[in-house]
Amino acid sequence: MDAEIIAVGSELLTPDHTDSNSLFLTRRLNENGIEVRLKTIVGDDRERLAAVFRAALKRSELIILTGGLGPTEDDINRDVVAEVLRRPLREIAEIRQRLESLFQRLGRKMSENNLRQAMVPEGAAWLENKNGTAPGIWIEHKGRTIVLLPGPPRELEAMFDAACLPRLTRLAAGNRIRARVLKVVGLPESEVDQRIAPIYKTYANPTTTILAISGAIEVHLRAHAPSAEAADARLGELAEKIEAILGDHVFATHGETLEEVVGMYLVMNQKTVAVAESSTGGLLAERLTRTPGSSKYFLGGAVCYSNTLKVRLASVPENLLEKHGAVSKPVARAMAEGIRRNTGADIGVGITGIAGPGGGTAEKPVGLVFISMADERGTEVREFRFPGDRARVRLWATQAALELIRRRIRS
Amino acid sequence: MDAEIIAVGSELLTPDHTDSNSLFLTRRLNENGIEVRLKTIVGDDRERLAAVFRAALKRSELIILTGGLGPTEDDINRDVVAEVLRRPLREIAEIRQRLESLFQRLGRKMSENNLRQAMVPEGAAWLENKNGTAPGIWIEHKGRTIVLLPGPPRELEAMFDAACLPRLTRLAAGNRIRARVLKVVGLPESEVDQRIAPIYKTYANPTTTILAISGAIEVHLRAHAPSAEAADARLGELAEKIEAILGDHVFATHGETLEEVVGMYLVMNQKTVAVAESSTGGLLAERLTRTPGSSKYFLGGAVCYSNTLKVRLASVPENLLEKHGAVSKPVARAMAEGIRRNTGADIGVGITGIAGPGGGTAEKPVGLVFISMADERGTEVREFRFPGDRARVRLWATQAALELIRRRIRS
Repeated sequence: MDAEIIAVGSELLTPDHTDSNSLFLTRRLNENGIEVRLKTIVGDDRERLAAVFRAALKRSELIILTGGLGPTEDDINRDVVAEVLRRPLREIAEIRQRLESLFQRLGRKMSENNLRQAMVPEGAAWLENKNGTAPGIWIEHKGRTIVLLPGPPRELEAMFDAACLPRLTRLAAGNRIRARVLKVVGLPESEVDQRIAPIYKTYANPTTTILAISGAIEVHLRAHAPSAEAADARLGELAEKIEAILGDHVFATHGETLEEVVGMYLVMNQKTVAVAESSTGGLLAERLTRTPGSSKYFLGGAVCYSNTLKVRLASVPENLLEKHGAVSKPVARAMAEGIRRNTGADIGVGITGIAGPGGGTAEKPVGLVFISMADERGTEVREFRFPGDRARVRLWATQAALELIRRRIRS
Repeated sequence: MDAEIIAVGSELLTPDHTDSNSLFLTRRLNENGIEVRLKTIVGDDRERLAAVFRAALKRSELIILTGGLGPTEDDINRDVVAEVLRRPLREIAEIRQRLESLFQRLGRKMSENNLRQAMVPEGAAWLENKNGTAPGIWIEHKGRTIVLLPGPPRELEAMFDAACLPRLTRLAAGNRIRARVLKVVGLPESEVDQRIAPIYKTYANPTTTILAISGAIEVHLRAHAPSAEAADARLGELAEKIEAILGDHVFATHGETLEEVVGMYLVMNQKTVAVAESSTGGLLAERLTRTPGSSKYFLGGAVCYSNTLKVRLASVPENLLEKHGAVSKPVARAMAEGIRRNTGADIGVGITGIAGPGGGTAEKPVGLVFISMADERGTEVREFRFPGDRARVRLWATQAALELIRRRIRS
């Protein structure tokens, strides 16, 4: 069963808002074996909405419209759907009574326009709204199912779970969709694709999508099957083949973040870590402590932006700073070793670099970052040149540092 | 001039992703007097994309397609647009040469599929991609303008600003849309609305929207006018009236972040700051160093997750930790004073709390956070109880710490 979502509201076409109800709806629909094939966002504009709705009727079995059910003139969904389907609006006495008694309880006078909410297209069912005044509408029409839901997420979500899910489960029996995400570091997107395309192309189910997101390449797999277990088995089979090809470039097999994976390894190996950061300004510590329970392996760190603090908090020898400059291999090494010694951590990490946009020179350009890692087996220092702006240089530097830790403790 | 945006990518139809490029594009288009009338999100599906693109050609003067320009089989935008417009794809020698020399510079072998990126529909212009391999495409066709942009935001944004804006400015003369964002702390959304509604409701242009976003209330104003200056004058008039009502709860008048505003005040007052963080794990340091040039006022900090590090890095007396526990007023105070002393900063900040989800007790529940600030006038400690999950408790704690600094140095 294929679904299509139409979000209605002029505010959803401004630079600051977007439709987010569709994320909730997609999750619920997928859990019940229904794929979302198309989403449209349209303003409070009768003509455009009618055109989009007509096109949806031609191609999708389930059409969900969100928003546009309130009492004002802007709220056009009820009218447009009734008109396109040629099902005139009829007042439902029960809804009217509920509205009247609600306003009475609140001690407020009900304005006439609220009665628009009691109107429902002929032959349609209405859905109770436990968190607001506008009821939803459910229409079965020439093999299509059309659902109108209110825009506020609290109203939409409660209504969907209480009134729509039981109906949809009946309509979409016997199909489940499950997804899995593998994450890869150390290979560019095109190379990941080239290596694994010969395998994933032999599978129509699961489908495979490759994405570059926040410093990692993600391989998204989605499978259909009559049961969740069968869908998971399909995912497992393909995931295993992809892992066999990409080897230890795969750091996550179920969507985990790199910091979660590193945390897991640290717990498994009963190792602790401490960090000394300059150019990343605390981002590595922040990522390591995003995960609940990170106090088991993260002792702490020093954000030593100034040279003085590199000396005081990470015990970097002053003569190294004078001789090589703050952004240098020897200083990165001293930061990692110093923070390890000062905190008693098993692993010490040091990062120093030039995040930009200012501060670069011909010799030490923006994007130059030294990352060091010290443990009982010794100290490793690596030099990186990250492209992009300040935020990106900082993100990639923490990504590289986490990957250094992962490779060291995994082995 | 009316625009329509088509975002292409199957991952944009999953529960975890949505199209966000359209927000950037809408902002830029609005600034140039172009309204976005419709947005569609469609998967990597040739037939559906062709249908949506055909419908767009009928109704919109400007059609922007995002994503689907990469080297893989999934990347269908180039092919579908060429086919619908009946403009066959031709290889552009210059793009091919650029791709080849790029891969040579990187010392990597170019896989054959990368050459798809050198193909451009007949009669179209191509747009340079400074941050990636896939060039954009610009087509003028029977009174319509069709633009194909790459999906990664860094690539799309740079390309749009460099190559599309100058072309669009020519197309859309005579109407400008400008926006301004005021940001408010310390008042709930409903109270902000109640206080300023009597003013903003008297204006049809600018329009006003109030939003709660990441720990602040934002008041968004949008004005139309024949020129940018005239639109800005309208915005300025209403913004001034709103500021007069909300007073020093307004921390930003042009969309600045709280860390940018605090950084500005620190520079103006020639003050330096250092932080000692426990529950926020480096997030406060990270926020303070997001701004370029933050080394002028941010000396550094200690992320002291363990008690040992609270003693070593922030000189918290051990007996305080034993007597009151790590999450307590006296420890927050000692952290702020200790980090100030150890770093020589003008202002020291200490944060200790329980971010959750574990670690809470009846007496010290999840969300309890003590924040302290020390400077030459003395030390202030405040107790907060933040609702929500781990990420939210950490965000609100850093928000409160930044607001403490702002209030102290502004006066």
